[in-house]
Amino acid sequence: MIIETIVTTLNETGEANFAPMGVTIGDGEILIRPYKDSATYRNLVATGTAVVNLTDNCRLFAESAITSPQFPTFPAELVPGLVLTDACSYYECSVMHADTASERATFRCKILKKGILREFIGFNRAKNAIIEAAILATRVRFLGVETILQEYRRLAEIVQKTGGEQEAQAMQYLHNYVERQ
Amino acid sequence: MIIETIVTTLNETGEANFAPMGVTIGDGEILIRPYKDSATYRNLVATGTAVVNLTDNCRLFAESAITSPQFPTFPAELVPGLVLTDACSYYECSVMHADTASERATFRCKILKKGILREFIGFNRAKNAIIEAAILATRVRFLGVETILQEYRRLAEIVQKTGGEQEAQAMQYLHNYVERQ
Repeated sequence: MIIETIVTTLNETGEANFAPMGVTIGDGEILIRPYKDSATYRNLVATGTAVVNLTDNCRLFAESAITSPQFPTFPAELVPGLVLTDACSYYECSVMHADTASERATFRCKILKKGILREFIGFNRAKNAIIEAAILATRVRFLGVETILQEYRRLAEIVQKTGGEQEAQAMQYLHNYVERQ
Repeated sequence: MIIETIVTTLNETGEANFAPMGVTIGDGEILIRPYKDSATYRNLVATGTAVVNLTDNCRLFAESAITSPQFPTFPAELVPGLVLTDACSYYECSVMHADTASERATFRCKILKKGILREFIGFNRAKNAIIEAAILATRVRFLGVETILQEYRRLAEIVQKTGGEQEAQAMQYLHNYVERQ
């Protein structure tokens, strides 16, 4: 099963990258599969460490899907890395094995520490609509603006019906981005 | 914000009802808004108590959306009621105020106890696809079989890509139900 997370990595000079990424969380290990043209890929190759953050703050997914933002963090304990302040839980990881043969690499990472900061809110349809909207926003060049805006009308209804201020703002943010393309 | 939950209530003879329901969880209280022709409505009027269960087991949403199932439970502590064994967390509630003027009633409930059993898994697109599929299944008479099956093709792709066995089974279960209508 794929869990949608924000993966934080550092480059060799210590600059942070925040990437929304679906990862597979297994028994004591996590599979991270970044494309080879991504900062996450370059950083994992360079440093061999990552923090995998689970959060129900969908705004973080919306922003990191389409820009290269910086979010509030604190230092990880067992790896050189950063934990999202607004994570519900997080995993400090180190790469055990890297398969870089195909366009999408597979890093098998050992979980060195799991931290829990607060409770994940549960199923909220609006938050999930934002996750879907963020994924669509990254595909605007393939799918076209009109196709996405049509899908956004359906998703915006769910956000309006079941979401709060954070979800409404995130929907507006993504909508504005797609319209500008 | 509306959180998707399974609300358990008892009727006057102690029989349990499990209803998938979007509720508003506030500061010390929960708003439950059942339709007046539902068992949840009748039970809340009769007993004045409910248990609101948050779970990431999407199969429970799929089944309770279209049938009247019984799920494994254990007794609540502070109200006569049942807690889902597979809840991540739950709220034992008693009705403070009932507004039954419109077709959809509003019960303002006081949270007497919050219990935490296990961690909610986080954002999994497949689980959320099942929530959406379950909601669609309840609307088959309004939307028509073909419209829903078309939407199910889109959702099944997400389930196949990001889900596990539980989500695949739940999707098949809902698909079979809709096809039979």
